[in-house]
Amino acid sequence: MARVLRLAAAASSAVGPAVLFPRLQTPVPTVRAFVTRQPSHQVAGPVWNLGRLNHVAIAVPDLEKAKEFYKSVLGAQVSEAVPLPEHGVSVVFVNLGNTKVELLHPLGNNSPIAGFLQKNKAGGMHHICIEVDDIHAAVMDLKAKKIRSLSEEATVGAHGKPVVFLHPKDCGGVLVELEQA
Amino acid sequence: MARVLRLAAAASSAVGPAVLFPRLQTPVPTVRAFVTRQPSHQVAGPVWNLGRLNHVAIAVPDLEKAKEFYKSVLGAQVSEAVPLPEHGVSVVFVNLGNTKVELLHPLGNNSPIAGFLQKNKAGGMHHICIEVDDIHAAVMDLKAKKIRSLSEEATVGAHGKPVVFLHPKDCGGVLVELEQA
Repeated sequence: MARVLRLAAAASSAVGPAVLFPRLQTPVPTVRAFVTRQPSHQVAGPVWNLGRLNHVAIAVPDLEKAKEFYKSVLGAQVSEAVPLPEHGVSVVFVNLGNTKVELLHPLGNNSPIAGFLQKNKAGGMHHICIEVDDIHAAVMDLKAKKIRSLSEEATVGAHGKPVVFLHPKDCGGVLVELEQA
Repeated sequence: MARVLRLAAAASSAVGPAVLFPRLQTPVPTVRAFVTRQPSHQVAGPVWNLGRLNHVAIAVPDLEKAKEFYKSVLGAQVSEAVPLPEHGVSVVFVNLGNTKVELLHPLGNNSPIAGFLQKNKAGGMHHICIEVDDIHAAVMDLKAKKIRSLSEEATVGAHGKPVVFLHPKDCGGVLVELEQA
C-alpha cells in the first residue's frame, strides 16, 4: 500500500494524486449490468467486462458542510462520516439510487488528497470508480495495452475489494479506479 | 440561453465555466429511484425529490482518442460523436449500465468548455448531473436556501429536458447540474 501511495503521489496529472481507500458497502438498489464488450476488445488480451459506475469521488475542504449540502439542501440519503485513518481520509457516502457520490476529506497529516485540495481550495471531483468482473484480467489486459496504472497489481481494500487506479494521462485527464465487482 | 452562458462563463470556480447542452436520450436500463427525503428537507420550501445520477461529464482534448479509450481499451458501449453546434460541444455518450459518462469536446470558436480545457490541458471531470422530479420546485427551493444557480430559471435543452446548473462554490467545488427526470 505504501508503495502504491508513493506512486500515486508521484503521478503528475490535472486531477492530482490518487487516493487508495476501501469503499464501505452501502446498499445501492441497482442491477449490476455488465455491458456487452466491443468486438475489438474480445480479440485481444484476457477476457474481462466493464460494469457499472460504482461511485464518483469528490474531495471537499469541509466534510460536514458538504454532507449538509447533499443531505439538507438536495435531500439525498447520506451516511455519517467514516474515518479511514490508514488511508488518510474520512468519507461520507451519498446514495443517489443508481450509484454513489463519495465525499472525501483529508484525515491526519499525510493524506493523499491534501495536495489535490491545495490545488483546488474549494474542492472538486477527484476520480470515478467503475466496476469490473475480473480485475486481475483487467490489469493484465491494460498492461498489454500500455495503459499505465498506479500500482503493478490490484490492491485489496479494507472490505476485500481489489482495486487499481489508472493513470489520468492515459484516461482523458481523469483518474479512473477499477474495482472488482 | 445566451444569458445563461454568459453567467456560466462569469462564474468563478475551480471547475470552470458551465456547459449547457442537451442530453440525447441514450437508453440506460436502470430504475428511476427517487430517494426518501430527509426530514429537514420536507419542512422547508417547495416539495421536490432528488433522483439518480444522470451522467458524469468529462471534458477531453481529443474526442476520438477518449472515445477509443472507453470503447476499445475499457470495452464500454459508446455512441458516435454527436455535434451540438448551438451549445459549442461535441459529445460521446458512454453507457455504463447504471449511468452515463459524457465526453465533451469544444465545437466552434466560442465553446463554453474551451476555458476549462485551457486550464486542464489533459482534460478532466467537468460536472455531474443529477435528476430531480420537479425542477421548477427545486429552483424555487434552492433559491430560498441561498444556493446560487447559473440561471434564474431552468432552461430547456434540445430534447425537452429542463436543466439548471448550481454554482460550484455552493456545492463543495463541484459544478452540479439538475435535470428534470
